[in-house]
Amino acid sequence: MTEQHSVPKLVAVLGANGRMGAEAAKAIEAAPDMKLVAALGRGDSLEQLASSGAQCLVDLTVPESTEANVRFAVEHGIHAVVGTTGWDAGRLSALESLLAGHPDTGVLIAPNFALGSVLASAFAAKASKYFESVEIIELHHPDKVDAPSGTAVRTAQLIAGERNAAQVPPSPDATTSELAGARGCEVDGIRVHSVRLRGLVAHQEVLLGGPGEQLTLRHDSFDRASFMPGVLLGVRNVAAHPGLTVGLDGYLDMGL
Amino acid sequence: MTEQHSVPKLVAVLGANGRMGAEAAKAIEAAPDMKLVAALGRGDSLEQLASSGAQCLVDLTVPESTEANVRFAVEHGIHAVVGTTGWDAGRLSALESLLAGHPDTGVLIAPNFALGSVLASAFAAKASKYFESVEIIELHHPDKVDAPSGTAVRTAQLIAGERNAAQVPPSPDATTSELAGARGCEVDGIRVHSVRLRGLVAHQEVLLGGPGEQLTLRHDSFDRASFMPGVLLGVRNVAAHPGLTVGLDGYLDMGL
Amino acid sequence: MTEQHSVPKLVAVLGANGRMGAEAAKAIEAAPDMKLVAALGRGDSLEQLASSGAQCLVDLTVPESTEANVRFAVEHGIHAVVGTTGWDAGRLSALESLLAGHPDTGVLIAPNFALGSVLASAFAAKASKYFESVEIIELHHPDKVDAPSGTAVRTAQLIAGERNAAQVPPSPDATTSELAGARGCEVDGIRVHSVRLRGLVAHQEVLLGGPGEQLTLRHDSFDRASFMPGVLLGVRNVAAHPGLTVGLDGYLDMGL
Amino acid sequence: MTEQHSVPKLVAVLGANGRMGAEAAKAIEAAPDMKLVAALGRGDSLEQLASSGAQCLVDLTVPESTEANVRFAVEHGIHAVVGTTGWDAGRLSALESLLAGHPDTGVLIAPNFALGSVLASAFAAKASKYFESVEIIELHHPDKVDAPSGTAVRTAQLIAGERNAAQVPPSPDATTSELAGARGCEVDGIRVHSVRLRGLVAHQEVLLGGPGEQLTLRHDSFDRASFMPGVLLGVRNVAAHPGLTVGLDGYLDMGL
Repeated sequence: MTEQHSVPKLVAVLGANGRMGAEAAKAIEAAPDMKLVAALGRGDSLEQLASSGAQCLVDLTVPESTEANVRFAVEHGIHAVVGTTGWDAGRLSALESLLAGHPDTGVLIAPNFALGSVLASAFAAKASKYFESVEIIELHHPDKVDAPSGTAVRTAQLIAGERNAAQVPPSPDATTSELAGARGCEVDGIRVHSVRLRGLVAHQEVLLGGPGEQLTLRHDSFDRASFMPGVLLGVRNVAAHPGLTVGLDGYLDMGL
Repeated sequence: MTEQHSVPKLVAVLGANGRMGAEAAKAIEAAPDMKLVAALGRGDSLEQLASSGAQCLVDLTVPESTEANVRFAVEHGIHAVVGTTGWDAGRLSALESLLAGHPDTGVLIAPNFALGSVLASAFAAKASKYFESVEIIELHHPDKVDAPSGTAVRTAQLIAGERNAAQVPPSPDATTSELAGARGCEVDGIRVHSVRLRGLVAHQEVLLGGPGEQLTLRHDSFDRASFMPGVLLGVRNVAAHPGLTVGLDGYLDMGL
Repeated sequence: MTEQHSVPKLVAVLGANGRMGAEAAKAIEAAPDMKLVAALGRGDSLEQLASSGAQCLVDLTVPESTEANVRFAVEHGIHAVVGTTGWDAGRLSALESLLAGHPDTGVLIAPNFALGSVLASAFAAKASKYFESVEIIELHHPDKVDAPSGTAVRTAQLIAGERNAAQVPPSPDATTSELAGARGCEVDGIRVHSVRLRGLVAHQEVLLGGPGEQLTLRHDSFDRASFMPGVLLGVRNVAAHPGLTVGLDGYLDMGL
Repeated sequence: MTEQHSVPKLVAVLGANGRMGAEAAKAIEAAPDMKLVAALGRGDSLEQLASSGAQCLVDLTVPESTEANVRFAVEHGIHAVVGTTGWDAGRLSALESLLAGHPDTGVLIAPNFALGSVLASAFAAKASKYFESVEIIELHHPDKVDAPSGTAVRTAQLIAGERNAAQVPPSPDATTSELAGARGCEVDGIRVHSVRLRGLVAHQEVLLGGPGEQLTLRHDSFDRASFMPGVLLGVRNVAAHPGLTVGLDGYLDMGL
């Protein structure tokens, strides 16, 4: 690993007053190989980011400001690790154009920083073409307003993509008499069930079944702390991945 | 225990050519405290039941014949352990009238002989009034035609009964945006989710959640063999329970 | 329910500076049917308890002071709900003698206030005599110093008691070649396995197995909040249970 | 895919009188893209294998004969898919030498044909370097004589290999007071727990934990049928993998 790809030591957090941002600032301060040089919130100027000497930005802000933040970083040669949502195809494409002119700078856009969740979805997709049946159960606290969860939808899409590419037929199902909703909803042909239960945080199971066997991939997220190892992994690796990477799995070594 | 309530030694199986009946005949033959004196199938005469000297009948036949079988047994002073479906309120009431004239004879009508399943449903119902949230997930092989399963419906009804009696409010649920079916179906106000997966047999989970904790009651039925301990328990205890008992839980010691 | 057995409205917490005590004080303040009249810590005088007008004491202190606290309460006609450890046979016996002279006062000594955990252990014990095999897996965070957990030991003892009373033979086990420790430890003849894993809090599974079926009773404690419903249930019911009760299960309706 | 690498259509089974072999013969007969041309048992001559015209051998025999069977196959240009145990380093090395002279012939030696089990172990190994903690629980029927299972030992070794290569420290464990065996056994520094329970077949869970999250990879093998998709996958792919492959994962597309 050459000098210019060395681990970013000087890190700035944007959105440091939010819950995720505050947690990230703490995690960076506690990491022995990083130094938190700026923790900026709503109202702070991006000039403070430039003057802080940050080598890497962690953006945990809001959809309205994330694009401007990241463009500013790239234009100043600062790598960016981004957990903010709102990056649609248009924004991603514009960012790629910008990065073409800054070939040494890396940006990671990660909708999910929980390593276990990212791994579970990737494993589920890879495994799914070897099984006749696959269904997803996601379980969350009862204050969640949407069902199914965004992670379950993405997992179902990944699975459907792999199964379609391998020409696996749909999961068998002889149901002829159903009380409405019993068999869950369908996302790209994959059944998804959403449980809401007091006491839970965020949990997901992918069930894969074949003759005489079952493979279950379960992820439990008990706490916001579960996102921090993923944020740190992003910061540690972004300089070695110039250009745009979407999804933390792009930084994970899962080749088997 | 007095002599007339001693364990029935001489047992007859009706429906012995069916899968459950054949399994039951084998289990009775293997039990050291029982003797199989008749294994009758379609076309055999009920007179053979009387002449076999059976003290207890195990009826695993079809809805069309079970009522006549059981009446014949009761009229001949033979206890009956019944796994056949089709016993609606009218049949049960007629049977009770008949039993009133045969006060020493016992009949057990059991829709489910899997001890673990019966215990799990009873525990779930008892526990459910202490938790804010409860949902049911049942998982079966993909050749099953109905969803949810009969066991899940009965479990939901038991739970709803206990919660209503204790005036527990409905499980909280903030869902405002739902892909149709994601949140399962509702049975007496209890959410039930049905998974169908190759490789599975018959499985059920009741999830109970309160602040910071979850209680999970899961039953797995891997094999028809799981019904046999319940059948034998029925045969061993029917003489000590004269009159009509519906549900194997009536014979189980679950007082806590 | 008569007037003198009505729900205690005025509640004092001892040990209110500890983590459990502080949580309990908050839970009592939030309960619509209770009023927190005193929150006392180390160094506060018990006279403050008397002068507060408290009808019920919640003791979450230390083994060194709990006995004196509870005696003071009983002598002043104040019911007590006690989560502090250290109540050995001698202390319990002395407390019973004292209570004999105060027949309207109730004391609950509860080693575990998590409703789900108490229910799971009680259910496991009751179910265990119907299954050939039973084993316990407990899973905790890796900072725990003892293995197995106290809850697992108590659960194993309850199970062993029920199985011995019903003359159930030991769980079958054909192991002849074992890497030391693979089969766990034994508590009263019941196998117990202890998992330690970062991210976990306190979890336990009792696995019960018979021919072709498995019953699993799992409890997850994610958070100290899980003890508060049990504390409130104790406060609400202690006046209706004069004398000494050991274990929250004494207040639960689990008759099946 | 060129003609000479096309799917072997003509398949012979050796060990066809054993339980696995009989099941494999049935599975091959049922596969639309294969034809069973020989089903040979103890005492049959290997010459029948040659004269059957088989393009692929499935060897499910005994350690004493498998080496000779496979050498015969290779020398006759017949691919081999081998589930028999007993292939130590010496035998494997001799087989590789032989295959060097038969560059178009493929041999797969697979200690485990359950796809889900192979995938779960591979996923667990890959994921393990991203988590602080990892432990294995394997659960089997109580007639098993060894603990832990061979699959658990191999899984632990794979995990230890990945973690050591990535210089991950040992899983944290503050246990200072242990009832002997509670924390399981250690295989290459990985804790393994073995449960034995009536009703179970063969099951394994790998638990991975980090701050605030858990990843669980569970495989359930309910039935010998679970090995057949793996056998067929081996037969379908062996011609495309000339030389020696150890482990079914060599044929699986798990690149992520």
